[in-house]
Amino acid sequence: MQDAGEDRVTSLKPFFEPRAIAIIGASSKKGKIGYEILRNIVEGQFEGPIYPINPHEEFILGLKVYRSIMDVPDIVDICVITVAPNMIPQVLLECGDKRIRGAVIISAGFSEIGNFQLEKQVVESASKSGIRVIGPNCAGIINTEKRLYATIESRIAPGCIAFITQSGALGGAALAWARQEKMGFSKFVSYGNRCDVDEADLLDYLMKDQQTTVIAAYFEGLRDGRRFVETAKRVSARKPILAIKSGHSSEGMRATLSHTGAIAGSDKVCDGAFRQVGIIRAEDIEDLFDMAKALSTQPVPFGDRTLVLTNSGGPGVMMVDALTKWELRIPETSKEIKDKLGFLPEICSKNNPIDLTAQAGPEHYKKVLQIAQESDDFDLLIPLFVPPTYVKSESISEAVLEVSKATSKPILACWMSGDLVREGVERLESGGVPNFPTPKRTAKAAWALVQRGRHLVQQKEEKASKSF
Amino acid sequence: MQDAGEDRVTSLKPFFEPRAIAIIGASSKKGKIGYEILRNIVEGQFEGPIYPINPHEEFILGLKVYRSIMDVPDIVDICVITVAPNMIPQVLLECGDKRIRGAVIISAGFSEIGNFQLEKQVVESASKSGIRVIGPNCAGIINTEKRLYATIESRIAPGCIAFITQSGALGGAALAWARQEKMGFSKFVSYGNRCDVDEADLLDYLMKDQQTTVIAAYFEGLRDGRRFVETAKRVSARKPILAIKSGHSSEGMRATLSHTGAIAGSDKVCDGAFRQVGIIRAEDIEDLFDMAKALSTQPVPFGDRTLVLTNSGGPGVMMVDALTKWELRIPETSKEIKDKLGFLPEICSKNNPIDLTAQAGPEHYKKVLQIAQESDDFDLLIPLFVPPTYVKSESISEAVLEVSKATSKPILACWMSGDLVREGVERLESGGVPNFPTPKRTAKAAWALVQRGRHLVQQKEEKASKSF
Repeated sequence: MQDAGEDRVTSLKPFFEPRAIAIIGASSKKGKIGYEILRNIVEGQFEGPIYPINPHEEFILGLKVYRSIMDVPDIVDICVITVAPNMIPQVLLECGDKRIRGAVIISAGFSEIGNFQLEKQVVESASKSGIRVIGPNCAGIINTEKRLYATIESRIAPGCIAFITQSGALGGAALAWARQEKMGFSKFVSYGNRCDVDEADLLDYLMKDQQTTVIAAYFEGLRDGRRFVETAKRVSARKPILAIKSGHSSEGMRATLSHTGAIAGSDKVCDGAFRQVGIIRAEDIEDLFDMAKALSTQPVPFGDRTLVLTNSGGPGVMMVDALTKWELRIPETSKEIKDKLGFLPEICSKNNPIDLTAQAGPEHYKKVLQIAQESDDFDLLIPLFVPPTYVKSESISEAVLEVSKATSKPILACWMSGDLVREGVERLESGGVPNFPTPKRTAKAAWALVQRGRHLVQQKEEKASKSF
Repeated sequence: MQDAGEDRVTSLKPFFEPRAIAIIGASSKKGKIGYEILRNIVEGQFEGPIYPINPHEEFILGLKVYRSIMDVPDIVDICVITVAPNMIPQVLLECGDKRIRGAVIISAGFSEIGNFQLEKQVVESASKSGIRVIGPNCAGIINTEKRLYATIESRIAPGCIAFITQSGALGGAALAWARQEKMGFSKFVSYGNRCDVDEADLLDYLMKDQQTTVIAAYFEGLRDGRRFVETAKRVSARKPILAIKSGHSSEGMRATLSHTGAIAGSDKVCDGAFRQVGIIRAEDIEDLFDMAKALSTQPVPFGDRTLVLTNSGGPGVMMVDALTKWELRIPETSKEIKDKLGFLPEICSKNNPIDLTAQAGPEHYKKVLQIAQESDDFDLLIPLFVPPTYVKSESISEAVLEVSKATSKPILACWMSGDLVREGVERLESGGVPNFPTPKRTAKAAWALVQRGRHLVQQKEEKASKSF
């Protein structure tokens, strides 16, 4: 059983590290899927051989086109398939003869429109040929490390977040969102109808992937609940998993049904299962990536006691409200710490949230964060900054970064005023401290870190109790 | 009583439409509050006379400086005060002699740090002098119509949203946020410790302000609960009011206490009161302005039955989930409408959420929205678009705008992929249809429209029942 699992993981390797790749259904017509994928692979600068296949073309983007996969004079690891759906079972048999090990089927027209029979034939052909299949009805895969962009979606910079998605379009939206937020991905997989490779396979693969430190996912339904739960539990012990699980309202379930043919599980059951296995649930792309940003840059805290440091009372109060909504604690400042804060002007509030008022400079932020990071009273630190028009945000960012380098406590920043703090935010994030534009979003990201910490502690306790 | 209320409103007019303005405490030093405000007024191109006051300066930004307000050879309507707090009671008496009608006190150092006595003296001096006071401890005021930027915060373009805020810093953040979202304001008021002019006065004033169609607010505490409730009810019958009420967690209440000295009301009481008077509550700046954008551009719907139109199944499901969370209905498509949708390719889902699939072009969006806007089954329309890499978003935006021009139903768009849809979003919003980047944010904005509709219907019913 363990071996079978290992095999399933090993068999995914060619998808992400192919030496040579074929595009079956490559096209010279701009806008056609068979053109756009080839263009992405070429422009993405994939370093291995690329073989476009199309009986009616000769050259595309300067590459020689082959009439059939059988004509390619090379060993090919994987193929991307964009031909008409009814041709695909036959294509897979040919790929089998050619010893291809994986097929990414972009083409739609299978179970998602009720064509279960054809999808079954695909599975049978692939199985006969010893080929693993991603898709059909998907948007492709990316491995930034190998500069492999075998997708119809736009390209993205390297990073340490892997994103897997059932919905191809949502994958495209996620890539665009991440690019806008200046985030990078290690891997991207749109797995569509998952007639073969499914979410559990991918989680297992990503657990061992050295480029990936955080796994983000978009699920609609889960195929094999039990295997999924076992896998997720094993994986989340090693790496955080964040997931949107959509279709949880009854209306949403109806929509899912007509969309993928999968039956979306009862939401409460799913919620409980997620919590149990350590998956951190996101509502939307926005908080999925906010949380991923926090988890991929910050250490996990040992508790939920949060220090809020602000230069403005109102936003400080909003931050406390938002953190409290997520059940994080904001402990009152101890007498000892208040004494240490004696250097602050009279006008400042020394209780948590500590309010430096608008006159605060970088040295105030630095000293207070220093005191808080040394104290046993706080597990995570949230500096908040709303710039008076005459204060530059970069100087405050530098102060935060100095403390960040010297502490093992997570720091999440909330520099609040859009274009007024752009330089400050860039400075923060290039130094490894994530910024969130509102208290609500900062609090959700802080919650994710705390949830992750809780899960790890709980797992340790379970192990410890078993060893007695 | 009615007259007293009228007086309170009339007496605010000089703040927003002054002929001449004085800056008491003007400075030539960059970064000083007395400089930055003057610079904002000058650069903002206020058209009336501007009188800087400072006994130690001669010219600032090319303007002659007067030693005292008494030396100004003109009738001055309002002054902005930035001098040391203990000087202010005396300054107000001089302003009284000069027949000034309003003072915006930027200076801090009053009740917010426990200095209640000094604030009381300010109130007494102002009252003796017949001067209305905004502040102290505030960030100033803006009236874009008159190009009046009497604030330490950055300037903003004209628009039809008024924003009032107890916290000055949050005001700055709000201005930056709005500018980033390309929104404009009619008025901006940071009212700080509100020793005189308070939230109720401002609501009453804005109700009559012709430039304002939506009122957005940030409250920490409410001074006179009963008057506030009466006022808000009257105002929200005419214009939508959106508000963040912070300090509602018990932790937040502790923070509020140390911040402004006001006691934040119990959250549940506040929630109920808000609903009763028709204030739509926001959690954060993000949804405050998302909702303001919807309410300032779209008609109010007569119900909550929503049509979702998508070119991508997954995001369509997410939208349904998000709308359902806010208790909006997504009715199944009737047989009649399904017949009308006969022109759609077989692969499309004709049930609501209608899924056009990735092949959808502008003509599909236009026809379906046309059918939905003509039908009695739907009260509001939400087109969602996730661009395949080879489709331009502007063409879909044009299709939506054509329908928007011809319908009295609200349309909220969700073009989902950041920079990939930038042109499409700009086209939409310049044509008056607001866009939201995620289903969650779209759903919250839709909820605000529906809440507004419900409130108006309820008010009509109350009036009708009284007339019998």
